[in-house]
Amino acid sequence: MQRLIWTIIAAFAMTVVLGPIMIPWLKKLKFGQTIYDLGPESHKKKQGTPTMGGIIFAIPALIAAVAFGYGDTRFDYLLMIVVSALGFGLVGFVDDFIKVKLKRSLGLTPMQKIVPQVALAAVLSVWAYRHPSIGSALTVPFFNVEWNLGWLYIPVMMFIMVGTVNSSNLLDGLDGLLSGCSMIDFITMMLICLTMAEADPANRSNLLNVAIFAGAMVGALMSFLRFNGYPARVFMGDVGSFFIGGALMGMALVTRLSLLLPVIALAMFLSSLSDIIQVGYFKYTKRKTGTGKRVFKMAPLHHHFELSGMPETRVVTMYYVVTAALCLLALLGFVA
Amino acid sequence: MQRLIWTIIAAFAMTVVLGPIMIPWLKKLKFGQTIYDLGPESHKKKQGTPTMGGIIFAIPALIAAVAFGYGDTRFDYLLMIVVSALGFGLVGFVDDFIKVKLKRSLGLTPMQKIVPQVALAAVLSVWAYRHPSIGSALTVPFFNVEWNLGWLYIPVMMFIMVGTVNSSNLLDGLDGLLSGCSMIDFITMMLICLTMAEADPANRSNLLNVAIFAGAMVGALMSFLRFNGYPARVFMGDVGSFFIGGALMGMALVTRLSLLLPVIALAMFLSSLSDIIQVGYFKYTKRKTGTGKRVFKMAPLHHHFELSGMPETRVVTMYYVVTAALCLLALLGFVA
Repeated sequence: MQRLIWTIIAAFAMTVVLGPIMIPWLKKLKFGQTIYDLGPESHKKKQGTPTMGGIIFAIPALIAAVAFGYGDTRFDYLLMIVVSALGFGLVGFVDDFIKVKLKRSLGLTPMQKIVPQVALAAVLSVWAYRHPSIGSALTVPFFNVEWNLGWLYIPVMMFIMVGTVNSSNLLDGLDGLLSGCSMIDFITMMLICLTMAEADPANRSNLLNVAIFAGAMVGALMSFLRFNGYPARVFMGDVGSFFIGGALMGMALVTRLSLLLPVIALAMFLSSLSDIIQVGYFKYTKRKTGTGKRVFKMAPLHHHFELSGMPETRVVTMYYVVTAALCLLALLGFVA
Repeated sequence: MQRLIWTIIAAFAMTVVLGPIMIPWLKKLKFGQTIYDLGPESHKKKQGTPTMGGIIFAIPALIAAVAFGYGDTRFDYLLMIVVSALGFGLVGFVDDFIKVKLKRSLGLTPMQKIVPQVALAAVLSVWAYRHPSIGSALTVPFFNVEWNLGWLYIPVMMFIMVGTVNSSNLLDGLDGLLSGCSMIDFITMMLICLTMAEADPANRSNLLNVAIFAGAMVGALMSFLRFNGYPARVFMGDVGSFFIGGALMGMALVTRLSLLLPVIALAMFLSSLSDIIQVGYFKYTKRKTGTGKRVFKMAPLHHHFELSGMPETRVVTMYYVVTAALCLLALLGFVA
């Protein structure tokens, strides 16, 4: 436990140091993001805020996780999470970099984004499928049963992975929203892995490594919130949101807890769902009646709340509080 | 552990329900606070926000703590914390009520506030002093030694108690500041008491009860943050800040961890300290040179940061993050 707390503190401290070094540099390199043209009017003032801030927490989190992870025995779980976080994070980095260089609000084309994501998801899914202590089963939360998917595990997991990292990306729309919500998710993952490690001595150091990585994310994000909280001095960019999505997904993959994600990461899930409903309903009504109709004032859902008159900070607080409550419910399934 | 999580959820749920019932009622009864005349200019807009919101979380926290506390064996610790939180909270309630009824920004006179506080502190200190498992010693954090104060324990504890509850009151100056910082403190207290309970079987249920009360505070405050976060729909008032101070102090009293308060509750400590320095220096320079000088732009410290150009929300986030980092350091002293 002391090791875990030191991990959190180390990631926190490195991010504290890295932030004030990186932010002016990101700004100087004119890494000011061209704000997504379809966002609410009130977001226009955010034009000058630098982006790609994700590297401010991603680098410290990786260093702390690897430095404090248990290397004495098996560390496959840690390695898989590193590959997932770093891999998806790199796709985001390329996307951000193109946005900045070409001064376009949208970086890679959807195809250029999705192909490497699907490839990475395939590698990770097959890796997990063939891993002796992961395999083709998923835990069904609250019912304590394993659901064995057989070979279907691979396409299902690929779908979940690509869905999760892109949902994480969609949730990153308000100051401190994704950084705070995912921090609560990582606290929860950390606690769950600690209890799982106690119950599974054969896999103990592997599961503790997951807790260590989660702790590193908690420390780094906690510190990053200083810079990303309203009013944000830096945005995390796609590099940040994909890194977070990849890290969370990697943890769900190795612990077989992917079906818990819609509970602890409901905010991400609803961001995607609201986007799909919005676009689907618009296309459907357009085809039926000639004019497209909308379900939400704006998708993803957090913009709907904002345009309904809620101040940005209040939407963010609501998301934090609901996430924390759901995480408490999730924890109930893991403690005695 | 399940019992503890249920406590948090129960307090959370009750506060969720109570908030929307109480806030319009507090507003209707014209419980709009007359904003402290000496606050920053930008706070004038907060004139219409109702106060006394502390009862929205205090009642659920008390109910949850008593309902889920272990009554099968000894519950003296729980009782002492209830007396401390409820006692100091009542002083705050009277103060708030007078403010509202007489439309004065300052309620009770300083004397009328301090006398019942000192009396309550005396009762609690003597109670703890004579308690077989508390006594006259304080734990020195990080050094693992007990510091036995003998009869001096009583005046020292009285000073710490009155200081803590009033510091809690001083920290309640920005939206979500005290509610969020103290929530982090209560999470820490909860974790510390869980580890202490494991190490001390003879006193186990007593210490678990402290964790239960801390959990009830966490759940209730988490939910209250929905209403109290920037921009606040309700202020907690003195009833809230004294209740929080009393609860935290009660927990420190029974666990002998009063000397840990300047670490985990540094934000409270600095609020008082900056106030004392400001007033002291002003009086000193006034006497020496004829004109009083100030150290801070405004005291307590959080107003100084605000007037130095930091947005209110950024000051609050900074306080959260620093508090969380200090709490992690404090936890290092309690886990293996």
